[in-house]
Amino acid sequence: MSKTSKHNFGAGPCILPQTVLKQAADAVEHWDKAGLSILEISHRSPEFEAVIRNTEALVRELLDVPEDYSVLFLQGGASLQFCMVPMNFSQGSPKTAVYLDGGYFGQKAIKEAKLFGKVETIDWKQSKTYTIPGSAAYFHCTSNNTIEGTEMFSFPETPVPVICDMSSDIFSRKIDVSRFALIYAGAQKNMGPAGMTLVIAKNTFLDSVKHPLPSMLDYRVYRDNGSLYNTPPVFAIYTAMLNLQWLKKKGGVNLIARENLCKAQALYDEIDRNPLFEGLAPAADRSLMNVTFKIRNEALEPHFLDFAARRGLVGIRGYRTVGGFRASLYNALPYESVTALVNALRDFSNDQALEI
Amino acid sequence: MSKTSKHNFGAGPCILPQTVLKQAADAVEHWDKAGLSILEISHRSPEFEAVIRNTEALVRELLDVPEDYSVLFLQGGASLQFCMVPMNFSQGSPKTAVYLDGGYFGQKAIKEAKLFGKVETIDWKQSKTYTIPGSAAYFHCTSNNTIEGTEMFSFPETPVPVICDMSSDIFSRKIDVSRFALIYAGAQKNMGPAGMTLVIAKNTFLDSVKHPLPSMLDYRVYRDNGSLYNTPPVFAIYTAMLNLQWLKKKGGVNLIARENLCKAQALYDEIDRNPLFEGLAPAADRSLMNVTFKIRNEALEPHFLDFAARRGLVGIRGYRTVGGFRASLYNALPYESVTALVNALRDFSNDQALEI
Repeated sequence: MSKTSKHNFGAGPCILPQTVLKQAADAVEHWDKAGLSILEISHRSPEFEAVIRNTEALVRELLDVPEDYSVLFLQGGASLQFCMVPMNFSQGSPKTAVYLDGGYFGQKAIKEAKLFGKVETIDWKQSKTYTIPGSAAYFHCTSNNTIEGTEMFSFPETPVPVICDMSSDIFSRKIDVSRFALIYAGAQKNMGPAGMTLVIAKNTFLDSVKHPLPSMLDYRVYRDNGSLYNTPPVFAIYTAMLNLQWLKKKGGVNLIARENLCKAQALYDEIDRNPLFEGLAPAADRSLMNVTFKIRNEALEPHFLDFAARRGLVGIRGYRTVGGFRASLYNALPYESVTALVNALRDFSNDQALEI
Repeated sequence: MSKTSKHNFGAGPCILPQTVLKQAADAVEHWDKAGLSILEISHRSPEFEAVIRNTEALVRELLDVPEDYSVLFLQGGASLQFCMVPMNFSQGSPKTAVYLDGGYFGQKAIKEAKLFGKVETIDWKQSKTYTIPGSAAYFHCTSNNTIEGTEMFSFPETPVPVICDMSSDIFSRKIDVSRFALIYAGAQKNMGPAGMTLVIAKNTFLDSVKHPLPSMLDYRVYRDNGSLYNTPPVFAIYTAMLNLQWLKKKGGVNLIARENLCKAQALYDEIDRNPLFEGLAPAADRSLMNVTFKIRNEALEPHFLDFAARRGLVGIRGYRTVGGFRASLYNALPYESVTALVNALRDFSNDQALEI
């Protein structure tokens, strides 16, 4: 089997475009005019300054970020954001932070928020109709639940600042940034390698923070230093730039959103058609990024994993608490990989029928 | 000029061994048996589990880390440690944290510590004789002052827990880990690329923390999850593993310490011999990693930078607050690069003499 015939459905860190991997590999060997590697250049060099500003410009262009928003690059993934958000925006406040519980990662965010102030939770899994109290410090939600395979296709209209963890679907579809006070995302799905976090925040929201904070946990410090207060994750930012250049060249978020829709549709169609398999997420909430499903006869699960592995389909085992299968269809996953998985579902099912 | 004839004296991110860069570049293109890139593999895969455990084992072996210490991999560099240390070890305590002020980065650590509790500072720049109160929560120091070009060659004997920022000299010389309660280091000098932080901590010291902390700012969470509580910086850890393998193969810390001593000695000897130049650090505190010096006639500074650049000597401009020059002689910098710099000092000086 050739190296490119592998189909990587991993949930993250995940597939990146082959051209991006090639460019990133080249840069690790030698990058600047002097022939130095991207790993050994100073983050204070004009060359890297150009990289980080270009990455910011690509984020702004691809997501149509309004001018009064800052685009920041941090470390620590969404997990560090789970505590930075309440440290900045509810700590010391009498107001309640309202959290939408959409699943595993939302619950992790809730746990951290409770260390800093009052928290009210709304169970999105139970009902899509909910009211956000107008007195809330902020409303926090998770746009895509990577583990459960559900996605929010609408966001509430509210005067309260809306904060959203978009780790697993940012850059996969169009979003109206102006409806959010702060968006954050671990990079390791549709943006780049693990080790970098993107934050997009409204400046007036950042300026509403009045209490002292540790420098590295204060969004304003990143903003006021162009994300260069300390040594940033140079290689992760550089590779994210390459990946966003790839996305732009491809046609941007609107184009990729159409492709992502078709990829997910093809897979859900087969899951619904095939009597052997069953989708795990409520139909209306089905994620376009992470498709969760199971085999009705669970005894066949290891057999299907083997069957798929022999066809080069990797990363489809479901998360341990959910079981079954999960196929992540991030931006860089080509349609042909989805076809390969659809064929595997169909052929496996046909083989089972023959055996009966 | 060939690509390898560049001499990189940058202070960090800095030079890494050519073989490590080649191996890292290869892994970005394709790494595992399936041909996937190191950037697109799951951090929960057995293959990456093996990488992170191997990296830990190399740290333990190279630094002779005692069994009752944990080796952790975090993000955020030393800058995040500046607040994590007091959050964990002085927050809510009536005890005073004692900080040695050795320069720029020590001062940054002091600023963050003041947010969390009482802080007493000792000016190491003024005197090497000082007393640590026995009632201190901990004693914090910086083993190498990257900007000033000074290094601590002895550490105090004290019953108080000693915490040390070893960002710019870890793995450059032998240290007795057992004398420290906690050591931290941003990786981007002698360990690997930017985007990763090494922490070595005594387990009983970590267990002395009794107050609740955000998960990502709690050392125990990293320990209890083998540094895999959340998605770690996969590529930075992998490249650090390659670099530590290189160091081990080379002969380990004792061997590299000898090389580092000879490299620094050669450069300081020329600075002291050459009437045009002058060392910036007090002789007894001169760092083996970062050699700071200036040209007595400051008007010649830009001329020397040009002269050096034409010979492929890069990264020698001094830090903006210190001025002059700084040559960083990290592990991966070959002796021939030091020779090239020494020759440049000598030849530039000779040229000047001819012009008079």
